[in-house]
Amino acid sequence: MADEMASQFREHSIAEFFKKNRQMLGFSGKIRSLTTLVHEYATNSLDACEEAGILPDIEVQIEQLDNGHIRITVEDNGPGIPKKLAGKALGQMLAGTKFHRYMQQRGQQGIGASGAGMFAQITTGRPVKFRTGTGDGKAFSADLKIDFKTNKPLLEEEEEKDSAYRGLWIQAEFAEVKYDKGEYSPFEYLKRTALANPHAQILFIEPTGERTLFPRASDLIPEKPVEIQPHPLGITTSDLVEFAHASKERKLSSFFVNTFSRFSQGKVQELKEALPEVSMDMPPDELQWEDAEKLVNAFKKLRWISPEMDALRPVGPEQVAKALKNIYNPEFMAVAERKPKVFRGGIPFMVEAAVAYGGNAGRRKADGSVGGDILRFANRVPLLFDAGGCAIIDAVKGMDWRRYDIRDFEKEPVSVFVNFVSVHVPYTGAGKQAIADEEEIVEEIRLAVMDACRDMQRYLHGKVREAGREAKKKAILKYVTQLAQDLPLLAGKGKPKEIEKKLLQMIENKYSQLTLDEAEEEAANGNGVKEEKPETGNGDEAKEE
Amino acid sequence: MADEMASQFREHSIAEFFKKNRQMLGFSGKIRSLTTLVHEYATNSLDACEEAGILPDIEVQIEQLDNGHIRITVEDNGPGIPKKLAGKALGQMLAGTKFHRYMQQRGQQGIGASGAGMFAQITTGRPVKFRTGTGDGKAFSADLKIDFKTNKPLLEEEEEKDSAYRGLWIQAEFAEVKYDKGEYSPFEYLKRTALANPHAQILFIEPTGERTLFPRASDLIPEKPVEIQPHPLGITTSDLVEFAHASKERKLSSFFVNTFSRFSQGKVQELKEALPEVSMDMPPDELQWEDAEKLVNAFKKLRWISPEMDALRPVGPEQVAKALKNIYNPEFMAVAERKPKVFRGGIPFMVEAAVAYGGNAGRRKADGSVGGDILRFANRVPLLFDAGGCAIIDAVKGMDWRRYDIRDFEKEPVSVFVNFVSVHVPYTGAGKQAIADEEEIVEEIRLAVMDACRDMQRYLHGKVREAGREAKKKAILKYVTQLAQDLPLLAGKGKPKEIEKKLLQMIENKYSQLTLDEAEEEAANGNGVKEEKPETGNGDEAKEE
Repeated sequence: MADEMASQFREHSIAEFFKKNRQMLGFSGKIRSLTTLVHEYATNSLDACEEAGILPDIEVQIEQLDNGHIRITVEDNGPGIPKKLAGKALGQMLAGTKFHRYMQQRGQQGIGASGAGMFAQITTGRPVKFRTGTGDGKAFSADLKIDFKTNKPLLEEEEEKDSAYRGLWIQAEFAEVKYDKGEYSPFEYLKRTALANPHAQILFIEPTGERTLFPRASDLIPEKPVEIQPHPLGITTSDLVEFAHASKERKLSSFFVNTFSRFSQGKVQELKEALPEVSMDMPPDELQWEDAEKLVNAFKKLRWISPEMDALRPVGPEQVAKALKNIYNPEFMAVAERKPKVFRGGIPFMVEAAVAYGGNAGRRKADGSVGGDILRFANRVPLLFDAGGCAIIDAVKGMDWRRYDIRDFEKEPVSVFVNFVSVHVPYTGAGKQAIADEEEIVEEIRLAVMDACRDMQRYLHGKVREAGREAKKKAILKYVTQLAQDLPLLAGKGKPKEIEKKLLQMIENKYSQLTLDEAEEEAANGNGVKEEKPETGNGDEAKEE
Repeated sequence: MADEMASQFREHSIAEFFKKNRQMLGFSGKIRSLTTLVHEYATNSLDACEEAGILPDIEVQIEQLDNGHIRITVEDNGPGIPKKLAGKALGQMLAGTKFHRYMQQRGQQGIGASGAGMFAQITTGRPVKFRTGTGDGKAFSADLKIDFKTNKPLLEEEEEKDSAYRGLWIQAEFAEVKYDKGEYSPFEYLKRTALANPHAQILFIEPTGERTLFPRASDLIPEKPVEIQPHPLGITTSDLVEFAHASKERKLSSFFVNTFSRFSQGKVQELKEALPEVSMDMPPDELQWEDAEKLVNAFKKLRWISPEMDALRPVGPEQVAKALKNIYNPEFMAVAERKPKVFRGGIPFMVEAAVAYGGNAGRRKADGSVGGDILRFANRVPLLFDAGGCAIIDAVKGMDWRRYDIRDFEKEPVSVFVNFVSVHVPYTGAGKQAIADEEEIVEEIRLAVMDACRDMQRYLHGKVREAGREAKKKAILKYVTQLAQDLPLLAGKGKPKEIEKKLLQMIENKYSQLTLDEAEEEAANGNGVKEEKPETGNGDEAKEE
């Protein structure tokens, strides 16, 4: 038995794991798989451009080949990849620069491009072809395969040329994918990418040859993302031990000050007083779990300045408004601006929310009717799949929409835009399509959407009242002629025509301006908004400091 | 730029990946995390017992410690783990015997126990303690940690003793978990585990000291799961190339016959005729992608005997019925028996479905009301989380329940049991809580539940008609006395008392037995059932052969 077990016992690489469980990377279903591929390449291009401070110019082409395969070609004007890293960056899972950084990025795991290459290889057996240059006078091209057993890149047809080329061109052939133009398609994906990345220009070429340009809506280069130090409230005991053991500092005190955000000498003093039994002169690599746990607990009792929020790069309210207007041309639209928050004690995040009503807002259903639509983004990346388990959906669907004069969210022309911005997005899976429903996150999304909805409610309430007034006015107008004839008879004086004219005037006055009653209602409604305030997290904001 | 990138470029281990993305293993939320831990240990115990042909006896204890941590102890009477494999089996991710086997197992990735150990380590810094013996006279115990950087187990306090002990005892301490007894709790998890594993005895000890025994309901040792060969219709080109290159056979023909299920010499002949350009005498390790792709396409054109279905181990209809009766004592219950099917061309699977109505069936909601409940299982393992993206939920919620006289699934006392049985369960994530909604799977689940519901519909329809008859009878009875007095006056003869008596008799007769109309309705309803048949997949079954 033991020997039998031993003979079957094997160790497997991460590449083998994802090869067997490709659905975990988003490769399930022919349409979703294709969108996942476009997503991975586009995301990498946008990240690379952003870090290099380049206005992105991205071209995505999808071709249907005669052998039934689909070929994807993506080219960007980004910084390119140095020759010695290219193989690993594109063909080794969990390798890259993104993994451990507290920095706002679209990709964060170093799996995306390698996963796409894996999918090419297991469906068509073909290598990924790429050409890249960093603008330093040399361009490098090669064919890339992945050795699944070892998770190592294998390069063939390597070639280096003199060239001023800067950027990355990548091309691969896939089977088990299908092109369509529905709500889960690469087209919709790129449209939404353009919505949340107005600084990017994206050209999309469909298999039919049809070309769609999503033009650059803003020449503002987004600020370069910055890497931040971890905040004392955001780390676990395990992290602290790991950081301490890897540190080259001589004392715990200098390790704290140099490793963490907001850790001043003053804080070291406070910590000494709060926890005299742990020496601040201890070499960090001697820190044991028990002391580390005490330290983490002591951190929680001190008052800290919030994490550095300036590492967060939202789209910005003006840009969101401009983009929504371009795409939906709605009757009404409101954008919420909220302050950054933290989750898990020390990870900064921020929620941008907007709501658009009427015009082309909402989702066109198969039966031609229109219903509410939720546009989900994480660090500006559209999330199209796995809606079921996503914090954004939980928050938006959990709202009492009738409060905002939306009687049935599924049946009104409303689009809700939510962009979750953070240095670490807690995705529910490696396919990165849903945000884990951690309480602090769901609550903040809810509050942000409520903020945006409050203005919409005023608009819709006005609309509803306007419709009511119109109906009343019409009902009364019906009787005016009759009344004008009866009144002189009853009163014994006056002329029907004159009375009718006066009555019409009275009605016009009454229904074309706010009555006293309605003005009061308006005021009461204002109070209603204020009453919601305790729910809007102002309490939380106070706690945060 | 290039040098900066290179300096930040690192390779990461799978352990580091899951340490950073623990939510992907089911470690998100304090209650879910605790249930995930119990799930991982219980699953391993059940798998080990099943493979060794042992009736499982499992004890799970959860203790609340003074330091705020929770300690979990699980002990089984399984085959134990050989000393030289214990560290890797419990403390190295993606290592184990389960990974590449086409065999029905609860766990299938070799991550579970290592993931639990990782969670102990990152939340409390403590090692996992274990003791194991294979019954051969030696027992081995040690403390286990994981080196995240390398994904290797580190053993301390190793000790080997003479002992006849057979089984595995494992104990670990966790923080960031919380014990409660709700619908996502370890209690509910073990209750459902007992439901789908009537051959197991499970003792659960809660932090309060309360002991619950889920007794063995059947002494039938389930047949040992068997490993099957892959079916020609279930493999990809990529698999074929990989298997061929790893083969020691001298010719493609013998490689096919010895590697694949249902691949006879006759099939080799058919293949030769269908694809003369690929030589069956070629050494397998020279097989190139182009030929492999042609072969896989040619496989699809031949007629094959279905995969070996006897590798599937359902709970069995009698056992399901017994378990449902024990737990819900329902008014009515029906179990569907369906034949095994295949998905992705060659992976055998089978769906067991049952429905229970009334009694304690259904889910008790917070407001005290009862609503429909879906009990999901994969290879007898309860799935409690990620309901949103699961094929079982899709299938059950997508049904037109009114057809089965369930007007609103959310408001009726109905429990639907579904167990998905396969040699490979396509989970949506490493947390193994939802089955990917592949079309063939969703459809077969739907058909199985419909099968079970058909009998329930007859029962409920009878109930509804009975209620209708009662209402009509009551309405008519109201008028009997008045009618009995009026009739003699109108007719000019008869006595009110006598007439009343006769009328009552007539009414009683009419409503206590089927009328002719209703008997016809019954017959028509029978036809209605038959009309559904084309949907029940009989067509599919024919295609399968």
